[in-house]
Amino acid sequence: ARRGYPEAVYCAGKSAEQVRAIAAELRRRHRAVTLFTRAGPEHARAVLAELPDARHEPEARLLAWPPAPPEPTGGRVLVLAAGTSDLPVAREAELTARYLGRESDLVVDVGVAGLHRVLGLLDVLRSAHVVVVAAGMDGALPSVVAGLVAVPVVAVPTSVGYGAAFGGLAPLLGMLTACTPGVAVVNIDNGYGAGHLAAQIAAAR
Amino acid sequence: ARRGYPEAVYCAGKSAEQVRAIAAELRRRHRAVTLFTRAGPEHARAVLAELPDARHEPEARLLAWPPAPPEPTGGRVLVLAAGTSDLPVAREAELTARYLGRESDLVVDVGVAGLHRVLGLLDVLRSAHVVVVAAGMDGALPSVVAGLVAVPVVAVPTSVGYGAAFGGLAPLLGMLTACTPGVAVVNIDNGYGAGHLAAQIAAAR
Amino acid sequence: ARRGYPEAVYCAGKSAEQVRAIAAELRRRHRAVTLFTRAGPEHARAVLAELPDARHEPEARLLAWPPAPPEPTGGRVLVLAAGTSDLPVAREAELTARYLGRESDLVVDVGVAGLHRVLGLLDVLRSAHVVVVAAGMDGALPSVVAGLVAVPVVAVPTSVGYGAAFGGLAPLLGMLTACTPGVAVVNIDNGYGAGHLAAQIAAAR
Amino acid sequence: ARRGYPEAVYCAGKSAEQVRAIAAELRRRHRAVTLFTRAGPEHARAVLAELPDARHEPEARLLAWPPAPPEPTGGRVLVLAAGTSDLPVAREAELTARYLGRESDLVVDVGVAGLHRVLGLLDVLRSAHVVVVAAGMDGALPSVVAGLVAVPVVAVPTSVGYGAAFGGLAPLLGMLTACTPGVAVVNIDNGYGAGHLAAQIAAAR
Amino acid sequence: ARRGYPEAVYCAGKSAEQVRAIAAELRRRHRAVTLFTRAGPEHARAVLAELPDARHEPEARLLAWPPAPPEPTGGRVLVLAAGTSDLPVAREAELTARYLGRESDLVVDVGVAGLHRVLGLLDVLRSAHVVVVAAGMDGALPSVVAGLVAVPVVAVPTSVGYGAAFGGLAPLLGMLTACTPGVAVVNIDNGYGAGHLAAQIAAAR
Amino acid sequence: ARRGYPEAVYCAGKSAEQVRAIAAELRRRHRAVTLFTRAGPEHARAVLAELPDARHEPEARLLAWPPAPPEPTGGRVLVLAAGTSDLPVAREAELTARYLGRESDLVVDVGVAGLHRVLGLLDVLRSAHVVVVAAGMDGALPSVVAGLVAVPVVAVPTSVGYGAAFGGLAPLLGMLTACTPGVAVVNIDNGYGAGHLAAQIAAAR
Amino acid sequence: ARRGYPEAVYCAGKSAEQVRAIAAELRRRHRAVTLFTRAGPEHARAVLAELPDARHEPEARLLAWPPAPPEPTGGRVLVLAAGTSDLPVAREAELTARYLGRESDLVVDVGVAGLHRVLGLLDVLRSAHVVVVAAGMDGALPSVVAGLVAVPVVAVPTSVGYGAAFGGLAPLLGMLTACTPGVAVVNIDNGYGAGHLAAQIAAAR
Amino acid sequence: ARRGYPEAVYCAGKSAEQVRAIAAELRRRHRAVTLFTRAGPEHARAVLAELPDARHEPEARLLAWPPAPPEPTGGRVLVLAAGTSDLPVAREAELTARYLGRESDLVVDVGVAGLHRVLGLLDVLRSAHVVVVAAGMDGALPSVVAGLVAVPVVAVPTSVGYGAAFGGLAPLLGMLTACTPGVAVVNIDNGYGAGHLAAQIAAAR
Ligand SMILES: Nc1ncnc2c1ncn2[C@@H]1O[C@H](COP(=O)(O)O)[C@@H](O)[C@H]1O
Ligand SMILES: Nc1ncnc2c1ncn2[C@@H]1O[C@H](COP(=O)(O)O)[C@@H](O)[C@H]1O
Ligand SMILES: Nc1ncnc2c1ncn2[C@@H]1O[C@H](COP(=O)(O)O)[C@@H](O)[C@H]1O
Ligand SMILES: Nc1ncnc2c1ncn2[C@@H]1O[C@H](COP(=O)(O)O)[C@@H](O)[C@H]1O
Ligand SMILES: [Mg+2]
Ligand SMILES: [Mg+2]
Ligand SMILES: [Mg+2]
Ligand SMILES: [Mg+2]
Ligand SMILES: [Mg+2]
Ligand SMILES: [Mg+2]
Ligand SMILES: [Mg+2]
Ligand SMILES: [Mg+2]
Repeated sequence: ARRGYPEAVYCAGKSAEQVRAIAAELRRRHRAVTLFTRAGPEHARAVLAELPDARHEPEARLLAWPPAPPEPTGGRVLVLAAGTSDLPVAREAELTARYLGRESDLVVDVGVAGLHRVLGLLDVLRSAHVVVVAAGMDGALPSVVAGLVAVPVVAVPTSVGYGAAFGGLAPLLGMLTACTPGVAVVNIDNGYGAGHLAAQIAAAR
Repeated sequence: ARRGYPEAVYCAGKSAEQVRAIAAELRRRHRAVTLFTRAGPEHARAVLAELPDARHEPEARLLAWPPAPPEPTGGRVLVLAAGTSDLPVAREAELTARYLGRESDLVVDVGVAGLHRVLGLLDVLRSAHVVVVAAGMDGALPSVVAGLVAVPVVAVPTSVGYGAAFGGLAPLLGMLTACTPGVAVVNIDNGYGAGHLAAQIAAAR
Repeated sequence: ARRGYPEAVYCAGKSAEQVRAIAAELRRRHRAVTLFTRAGPEHARAVLAELPDARHEPEARLLAWPPAPPEPTGGRVLVLAAGTSDLPVAREAELTARYLGRESDLVVDVGVAGLHRVLGLLDVLRSAHVVVVAAGMDGALPSVVAGLVAVPVVAVPTSVGYGAAFGGLAPLLGMLTACTPGVAVVNIDNGYGAGHLAAQIAAAR
Repeated sequence: ARRGYPEAVYCAGKSAEQVRAIAAELRRRHRAVTLFTRAGPEHARAVLAELPDARHEPEARLLAWPPAPPEPTGGRVLVLAAGTSDLPVAREAELTARYLGRESDLVVDVGVAGLHRVLGLLDVLRSAHVVVVAAGMDGALPSVVAGLVAVPVVAVPTSVGYGAAFGGLAPLLGMLTACTPGVAVVNIDNGYGAGHLAAQIAAAR
Repeated sequence: ARRGYPEAVYCAGKSAEQVRAIAAELRRRHRAVTLFTRAGPEHARAVLAELPDARHEPEARLLAWPPAPPEPTGGRVLVLAAGTSDLPVAREAELTARYLGRESDLVVDVGVAGLHRVLGLLDVLRSAHVVVVAAGMDGALPSVVAGLVAVPVVAVPTSVGYGAAFGGLAPLLGMLTACTPGVAVVNIDNGYGAGHLAAQIAAAR
Repeated sequence: ARRGYPEAVYCAGKSAEQVRAIAAELRRRHRAVTLFTRAGPEHARAVLAELPDARHEPEARLLAWPPAPPEPTGGRVLVLAAGTSDLPVAREAELTARYLGRESDLVVDVGVAGLHRVLGLLDVLRSAHVVVVAAGMDGALPSVVAGLVAVPVVAVPTSVGYGAAFGGLAPLLGMLTACTPGVAVVNIDNGYGAGHLAAQIAAAR
Repeated sequence: ARRGYPEAVYCAGKSAEQVRAIAAELRRRHRAVTLFTRAGPEHARAVLAELPDARHEPEARLLAWPPAPPEPTGGRVLVLAAGTSDLPVAREAELTARYLGRESDLVVDVGVAGLHRVLGLLDVLRSAHVVVVAAGMDGALPSVVAGLVAVPVVAVPTSVGYGAAFGGLAPLLGMLTACTPGVAVVNIDNGYGAGHLAAQIAAAR
Repeated sequence: ARRGYPEAVYCAGKSAEQVRAIAAELRRRHRAVTLFTRAGPEHARAVLAELPDARHEPEARLLAWPPAPPEPTGGRVLVLAAGTSDLPVAREAELTARYLGRESDLVVDVGVAGLHRVLGLLDVLRSAHVVVVAAGMDGALPSVVAGLVAVPVVAVPTSVGYGAAFGGLAPLLGMLTACTPGVAVVNIDNGYGAGHLAAQIAAAR
């Protein structure tokens, strides 16, 4: 694995056959932890045909092999999903961080419309070494969270929403121009990248 | 005045001479309250040459004539400026609402980065019949405010900021996709329009 | 219900199972009026399985429970649809306003191409406390309407149209830059938000 | 002149010296009517140094030589300017049409916010063979006018406005998606092109 | 028919039932020529169920009733399609012009890559009273054609192409900034609007 | 200071008088480290009038008071500037990180066009706890760097460049879609934000 | 064939029948090498029905007839695909160059994330007369390659990727603003155009 | 010089002092041909202070040192400027190609509006080994030229124009989607890059 982290196979741009060939090769060479991201049902079947013990998390469109994540080291990663629709992205972040060797947790439904919910999480928030926030629509949550914690916030805009959300452009711009410093932005819907970055930030030193 | 409200003369697109001619005509016909908006120093001089008792508010780039606003009727308008740089727009909104006949107040420096500031304003917020929020950058404030009050929030994005703020596009999109319902959006930097709309919403019925 | 208004469940981003779970929970806790917005046929089935007496309005993709709207208070909401294709959005606005406790009516096919139609509605327009206008393409209607009434106009751009309409961008920009003050803009296709805002504006005080 | 119409020299991209050289050449070869468009003060001085009897219309940034327009033929061109700030573009259109050999007139301040003004012009509108409409902001006027006349409407969006007008993008999109057929769109601020097209449409046949 | 021209029913935004109701109403009231534009197979079936003698042109997605176009008056409309893929739009323009009462013809496959083809059409081009040009990709054809004829050119960008064509944006911008005056632009893929405008331009006077 | 870090005063949106008032207030209350960012010459004069011992770094448009940065703790921050024109942004990042308590260094002129330069820095790169990369134009450098190190890379796009760089949009999109995971993106030209985020990432734990 | 190169039939915008008619015509007239690009399965069947010996390359969506490419002349074309998902575009480029008469080779999976892979190709790169690089996401590869070779690099952005890749916009902008000179950009996904241009560049002289 | 070609110093992003230091260093080390591009008057003064015999071409904003271009080798580069306003960019391309060792010529004022002009150049066009075309507005010229020659066309869009030209976006998109293959696009206003690429294409082999 490049630079000490698991390899990831991005399935979306590949045929099931291509993914199966990679899985077969993997079994032969028996390398360390590998993630299959953006895996649709057919990709999943292809992987499981070669690596039957792989762990499959359909909601996050993720497969991991070998199935057991490494023993956690470093700091704790906390993932927030602003709404239910941000869950797939948030879960992809949570699982990626875990398979990269961090302890990680997920809290759902933390919109800025209900501030009490955010404020009620203050203790949990402040115990994390890095907070990942997945949010669509106006993407205002990372700004609010970054104002409450001293650690970095990884903001991942989602394509959830319609109209002027323009496929995630609105939260992307909102996160980039967040009034509070300490917000690290990754690509729209890039739960994998968010989890990876969070794991690097919280790595043991 | 069309539909019972003061006329407004938009100066930005006019020469000082054109504005002066309008002011002279106004003096002759002696119509009710008139506002000169987006008035630069030369526009202001032109108006004051014809209407020496006009009230000039340079920060808001506004002149009003006759100088005294009408006796307030209807509900109270509260204007919030997220940062100091949003002041010109916020003040234009406050003064417009006042000259359209509403009681109106202005509170500055209420960013989402410091939630305590917003929460400390809860009582003031809840006493208003409509809240105007001027904010640039990520434009997250209206969403947060709308979650705290039952009345409409008029959101005016400002061109304050740089880079991915794209001249007000970021807060504009953020306000349009605000997670909380009850947010009415007007054009970027349109303090006049925000104050006008707020005055209509808070009109006596 | 947050801030005294019904809760709304945005179905588009949720699976039928997630929606059903929410409906079941609702039945147990028996809370006040709840709306299910952007509900496709499967979402509707899921809601009706748990709340068989819910009212289902397929054209507006809306379900309401309990089925009877509250006794109207406050002012009257008038909804205009520029063309037949704007109907789903307009109807969503009308019903939302009604379930938030306002009297509300809908008039269809009021394009600016046929001014006589708009002018023939003057009396109806002037009896409303707020006018909602749903329009796609050039979105010129709110500007025209706002010039005829003294009350606020809530403009909701629709994604109706093709080519340079760019999925609602053209009417959105047109409404934001409307020459007439008094236009409150909400997100593209956001009939729910338009109806909610209108209900807040026309609330009894 | 190419295709029987006057040549036009677009000055904006040229130095005063380049423009002067063209004017000198023109005097030598004594060709038919020539227009100098987008001419700033220095361009004008350069033209007048070589062609002292040229007609200079500073508001329209236009010079014409020889100074007298041709005897009008064909139909009548009517130019409408939505607001005072649209005047330079509208006047450029009016003068271009006249120098291309059409009778042409200009009416200013015909916004959609005051429909009575448009409706009061019905007779004038219906006597024209083509109507040019210059409008910024929401650009809704051509749509309304095209619904009132049977002849083509040439719509020229202007860069007048701010914020979401995005330098003329908003009226451009609005005019392209006008609900009424019969609207011919030209480039933002292109008064010359609008007048040229109108003159071609109204040409004697 | 508004302003003396046939009515057009835009089917794309309507259900088959809505279109059928309009057709039925039409049969009852027996009004003059009506066009059904953007009619898919189901819309066509609905129209033909009520108006069995309507003329159906599937390639142009158009139905006309009564089926016979009016006796031509006014000048001749020539429609050029840059490539085969621009045919549906070009044909919609040709038929619209014919049903609005003009003689009209269509020539296909006239790209700028093969100038000889354009130059070989010079006589045909110069016999027309107006030329409609439908082109996608770079949309360079109208510019070239307008340099060859003295009459107006109606340019209709098509969404043909991929990548940086951005759904018709590239030819739209190209046509708006055409170096040659005399180009009237309509919305992307708007064959109906192009044919309508051309018919108005070529109308008998 | 909010959350334990220095306050920063964003000068760009403020008048010299407003900045001076803040500096005066600061002197009175004697709070901990404060940064004045985006300070033009007049802002700098205003700050120095009140706080004569403040450190002024004109290239980075930054002032710091008190002038001495805190004793470094935590990990090392390495800042790379792709070209000379990216220096102001890179230097703002370096100084911010230093005043937030990190050891920090700056290396200039590390474009991807000359890979040997990047590869020659491998040892320096790998000794850092976080790498900040400031780059305009195509913004390809962070991708390359992130492939060489295991620690997070903070990528700050700059508005350096012309044409299709679109004021920083090109490098912004390039950094967001970097093929290598581990890239944290901040706003265009936001050297302050990049340095702040880097300092948080490298904070002692 | 225009200008001495094979004709290409762009199938995407044509029906299977239209393509079949072209193939039949081709058989009759027996012209030189012809390519069918963007051919889906139905287009392929149509071509093969008329020209059974045509060569079909489904991955590149290409058919060539007659099946044997010409004897190579001129310089060597090297095609690089950054990732597996860029293969269809890269292969279209490779085959086009070959059918236009150049020797051409394809190397896959050469991302900038793994520089060693690029550096390991130095000898192959330097033996080519032109290098085609197909890359999506951040499109950083052409910049890096152009820094290593003295010959032109033809860069073809692909629509591979998601979010801020915006359908190929991100790599397109990145390639246009590449820091290294010598990069020739073609349209997004335009493997045909890239191969054609490369063949022209490497043509024997 | 990297890869055998002259170095180029991009002055736009540097202070006069920075440029002077580079020129001084150059004099000391006496390296081969160096170009200073995008040099304003102050940059030019700085270069000439250190390298008094440098050749300065103000229209192209270029300085070259040593002043004499190398003896030409390889094929001939022909540069076309669509209009006078495209001259600075075209001249930058011509001079760059010459200093990279190619024979190069420049022809001005070759718009598509006057096809006879383009057709009159056929012999000159066909004698070149590569044609560079600089054009703003609709950028249709490269498409037309590429249809007339067998060699590659390097298309450089210019920011000349207004309105929907959007600073060069219109010609950029037009050139990328040119209907004729064989068009290599470089960045807006990038005369240097166009000349560099042309010189590489026409290099002796
Ligand atoms: N979901 C994802 N989003 C963005 N990048 C990814 C994702 N999954 C994997 N990658 C990156 O893509 C690389 C694998 O690409 P490939 O070799 O085409 O499978 C990995 O090393 C990651 O850097
Ligand atoms: N600052 C402003 N922003 C937007 N619209 C304005 C502004 N000031 C005035 N207006 C509108 O512009 C109209 C006046 O335009 P004009 O006749 O050109 O002065 C007024 O009736 C208002 O509706
Ligand atoms: N294909 C079309 N593209 C644009 N506008 C159209 C089209 N067909 C009809 N229209 C316009 O839309 C109006 C009919 O809209 P509707 O009442 O919704 O059927 C007609 O009066 C035309 O002005
Ligand atoms: N895949 C492609 N992408 C872009 N242009 C193409 C492609 N294939 C063919 N062309 C061009 O389109 C022309 C054929 O268009 P058509 O006559 O519609 O088949 C050819 O002469 C090529 O110049
Ligand atoms: Mg923080
Ligand atoms: Mg509220
Ligand atoms: Mg009103
Ligand atoms: Mg009309
Ligand atoms: Mg013409
Ligand atoms: Mg890394
Ligand atoms: Mg190279
Ligand atoms: Mg060619």
